[in-house]
Amino acid sequence: MAIRINADTGKLKKILDEQRKAGRTIGLVPTMGFLHQGHLSLIERSRDEGCFTVVSVFVNPAQFGPNEDLDSYPSDLERDYELSVGAGADLVWYPQREDLYAPGCQTAVMPGALAQRLCGISRPLFFGGICTVVLKLFNLVKPEMAFFGEKDFQQLAIVKQMVADFYLDVRVIGCPTQRASDGLAMSSRNARIPAGKRDLATTLYRTLASARRAFRGGERDGVALEAQLRAQWPQGLDLDYLDFREPLLLEKVERLKADTRLFLGAWLDGVRLIDNGAIK
Amino acid sequence: MAIRINADTGKLKKILDEQRKAGRTIGLVPTMGFLHQGHLSLIERSRDEGCFTVVSVFVNPAQFGPNEDLDSYPSDLERDYELSVGAGADLVWYPQREDLYAPGCQTAVMPGALAQRLCGISRPLFFGGICTVVLKLFNLVKPEMAFFGEKDFQQLAIVKQMVADFYLDVRVIGCPTQRASDGLAMSSRNARIPAGKRDLATTLYRTLASARRAFRGGERDGVALEAQLRAQWPQGLDLDYLDFREPLLLEKVERLKADTRLFLGAWLDGVRLIDNGAIK
Repeated sequence: MAIRINADTGKLKKILDEQRKAGRTIGLVPTMGFLHQGHLSLIERSRDEGCFTVVSVFVNPAQFGPNEDLDSYPSDLERDYELSVGAGADLVWYPQREDLYAPGCQTAVMPGALAQRLCGISRPLFFGGICTVVLKLFNLVKPEMAFFGEKDFQQLAIVKQMVADFYLDVRVIGCPTQRASDGLAMSSRNARIPAGKRDLATTLYRTLASARRAFRGGERDGVALEAQLRAQWPQGLDLDYLDFREPLLLEKVERLKADTRLFLGAWLDGVRLIDNGAIK
Repeated sequence: MAIRINADTGKLKKILDEQRKAGRTIGLVPTMGFLHQGHLSLIERSRDEGCFTVVSVFVNPAQFGPNEDLDSYPSDLERDYELSVGAGADLVWYPQREDLYAPGCQTAVMPGALAQRLCGISRPLFFGGICTVVLKLFNLVKPEMAFFGEKDFQQLAIVKQMVADFYLDVRVIGCPTQRASDGLAMSSRNARIPAGKRDLATTLYRTLASARRAFRGGERDGVALEAQLRAQWPQGLDLDYLDFREPLLLEKVERLKADTRLFLGAWLDGVRLIDNGAIK
């Protein structure tokens, strides 16, 4: 069993203060709910680090653009609780909108260059909204460690940058992408992939696997390989980006190295799909 | 005597941790140096609150626009130390640029509607730069209390809003404007008022006094009074704004009340002058 808190930031803080006094390290797994194995691996990692593990479930309006899928974002709060408990969470917190965005609130975080590429091009409000809510969550929960998935590698890099730039006392820990047996990266949005189009959705993973094969085969020319991968891209899957980039500043690279990552973004009938991975 | 720290954030944090363990409350007075009686009143207030009082001296580049007076901002670090000690500071910290803006740093705070009026019109980067550096200072020093002057009333309101919006554990305390005997609000920039133009600089205070007299005389029509005050504005002093506003959201008001404030901004031969005060 885990403690369940609906809204009530005061109760949350009281419990966390007690845990801190008892010598526990606080670990935070921020989620938008509709949990899957990716989230559960973060909770398990926090548990394995010995943390008193807080899972927050909050669909953050500030990171959705006006024409995005805020209203259709999948949700199942009961299942989220059960799955969190199963993975080792100590506390599941469901903040309400006013717990994180009080009436009249207006101050936001503005990330920099890292947010102006990849997903940031088609979703200009996205990373500012993420940073803003993550900073609020960090300041309320005051975790020593926070766990984010590498599936959202750009988000992870931007949050780490915010933590460094604002001198926040939290260790941000990136955890490996979890995949279904067909390779599709776990995502809450996978539930909205239209029936019969699952195979198309796995294009992102298959493209990554293809790039890895080419690299193993000796290919080092990123420009040529990118052109080849784009040429194989199927109809019916709207490509947003397909880029080779280095893993720190996420700058484009032309010469492939072992730590170069392939970043992929697309829409399948309006469902956002992203993936990424090191080429080796 | 007070502790003096040049750069060396590690040493700063160690000393503050010791003070906290000894049960002291930390008070922060963030300044851009070239201290005057306004700053000293903040230091004295922090001392009177029983705080271990930290004065930071840092001319924050992020709050200056490209054509503003960053390079000519007055400075006298030795005098700042002596004056801080005299007013009761326990520690004077001189961060270097890289202590607050490490190479590659890029995350900023973006204030909201409160920053898009008054000084925010002519200085669009100003309050974002202030919020960003104040958040960094708060996260490094972790003060329980921080002291700001009401001379910069809009800054005070924006910082309070940031503290509320980001759930920061710091009490922001506004302290009354300090004035010279001729009424001129204390400001480091007063040192740059050209010889022989001091009287012109006191226009802001005299306009505030004039508005107070009118209010005492029964005037409640803010639109009429504003027009009258503008008509009396002297040549040679470039008016930026002259507005009656309420003290919380800084919205314009037409009907004057006791808590209505007059806000004034101007340039005198390129020297920025601001002032404000309650009309009663």
